[in-house]
Amino acid sequence: MKIIVIGAAGTIGQALVKELASRHEIISAGRNSGDIQVDLTDAASIEKMYQQVGPVDAVISAAGNVHFGALNEMTAAEYAIGINDKLMGQVQLVLIGQKYLNDGGSFTLISGALTNDPIVYGSSVSMVNGGLEAFARAAAIELARGLRINVVSPTLLTESQESYGAYFRGFETVPAAKVARAFSKSVEGAQTGQIYQVL
Amino acid sequence: MKIIVIGAAGTIGQALVKELASRHEIISAGRNSGDIQVDLTDAASIEKMYQQVGPVDAVISAAGNVHFGALNEMTAAEYAIGINDKLMGQVQLVLIGQKYLNDGGSFTLISGALTNDPIVYGSSVSMVNGGLEAFARAAAIELARGLRINVVSPTLLTESQESYGAYFRGFETVPAAKVARAFSKSVEGAQTGQIYQVL
Ligand SMILES: NC(=O)c1ccc[n+]([C@@H]2O[C@H](COP(=O)([O-])OP(=O)(O)OC[C@H]3O[C@@H](n4cnc5c(N)ncnc54)[C@H](OP(=O)(O)O)[C@@H]3O)[C@@H](O)[C@H]2O)c1
Ligand SMILES: NC(=O)c1ccc[n+]([C@@H]2O[C@H](COP(=O)([O-])OP(=O)(O)OC[C@H]3O[C@@H](n4cnc5c(N)ncnc54)[C@H](OP(=O)(O)O)[C@@H]3O)[C@@H](O)[C@H]2O)c1
Repeated sequence: MKIIVIGAAGTIGQALVKELASRHEIISAGRNSGDIQVDLTDAASIEKMYQQVGPVDAVISAAGNVHFGALNEMTAAEYAIGINDKLMGQVQLVLIGQKYLNDGGSFTLISGALTNDPIVYGSSVSMVNGGLEAFARAAAIELARGLRINVVSPTLLTESQESYGAYFRGFETVPAAKVARAFSKSVEGAQTGQIYQVL
Repeated sequence: MKIIVIGAAGTIGQALVKELASRHEIISAGRNSGDIQVDLTDAASIEKMYQQVGPVDAVISAAGNVHFGALNEMTAAEYAIGINDKLMGQVQLVLIGQKYLNDGGSFTLISGALTNDPIVYGSSVSMVNGGLEAFARAAAIELARGLRINVVSPTLLTESQESYGAYFRGFETVPAAKVARAFSKSVEGAQTGQIYQVL
């Protein structure tokens, strides 16, 4: 398969590229990294990416920014960061991408365990993840030509514990290689409308 | 208790006012209806509403607009309608309202069953509902002074079947009076961070 991976240079992206690269042709993408540049917050750059790459069999996203902050301090503008980037950025990958994917192609997006397992300072992340997961369940029943969509929802990665662990005390962590297998299951399997929780 | 009900003139709003009015002081609100005017898409009007009404014990929302449309036709601007109105409008009720509620006060917001049970043309509604539910679970663990937050998530109302039933073939419906009891449970109980599914 020919697969675009947005965020291929990231912690999760690197692991899933390692999982998939021996069996598939990977086109890596990022704002400043990868074979091709794309910014999820910019619809024109998403359209341009699909045009440059041509028809693909799978689109994977392991990207997306959200603002962390206290509920009693955060502004609507800070919630908008996650809405425009991780939420609508990934939704736009689907809205725009549905006309570029080959028949039977798949979208696999990234959310996170905060949907159901919140932390202090994480209300915007939970909101974005919950919105994305519900969008995917709904989009799955409308996509044409056998196109599929799933979401991978990992808890804190073992590789990210040093950076973010203080906000996630007591959370079990998962290695990036395990998260990568959930992307493999989505891309190389046949399911749709699923949220793969990696906990 | 002194309770603000946004959307009190609506199908759900009327039923919950009927449920609560004999035991509590209700201030009804809407864009063009009610004791007081507020537009969820306008933060300044939300701030003004709280200032006009003064300290309250509960805020209920049974309001919020979202665009229905086909996944392969909808634009980002059409997704933004629901994001700015039903999603961020209700989030703003909490962000702004947290400083106006009395100690132990509650927010009760409205989502809908499409979070988990999608329909064709409903991807934006599912996204908005899923985002709101996850936000509420997260906000519940950060609210100060014993403030609480819950979400009521009804399936199609019996009273709305004539208007929307064609999009919900085969769905069981619930009477507005049953949905109203979920609002009573949230406001008059002590739970927080709950999604009350009324199915
Ligand atoms: N790490 C965890 O423990 C964890 C757990 C659960 C969920 N997640 C979610 O998984 C996703 C990736 O996390 P990560 O830790 O792997 O992140 P990361 O190491 O910071 O990598 C993010 C990658 O995405 C790209 N990127 C970021 N914003 C982009 C945008 N707007 N448009 C295009 N590319 C963009 C970055 O490349 P450029 O810098 O070149 O743009 C980078 O390659 C995030 O959404 C995060 O919320 C992470
Ligand atoms: N009806 C159903 O079967 C059903 C099922 C599940 C979920 N829901 C959800 O429940 C909510 C209410 O549904 P409903 O059927 O009761 O609606 P409705 O009968 O159309 O009533 C909506 C009420 O909200 C007010 N309103 C609308 N937009 C507003 C805004 N931006 N700011 C302030 N007030 C606003 C309206 O008053 P003005 O016109 O004066 O503004 C009206 O009083 C919606 O979010 C809907 O998605 C409905």
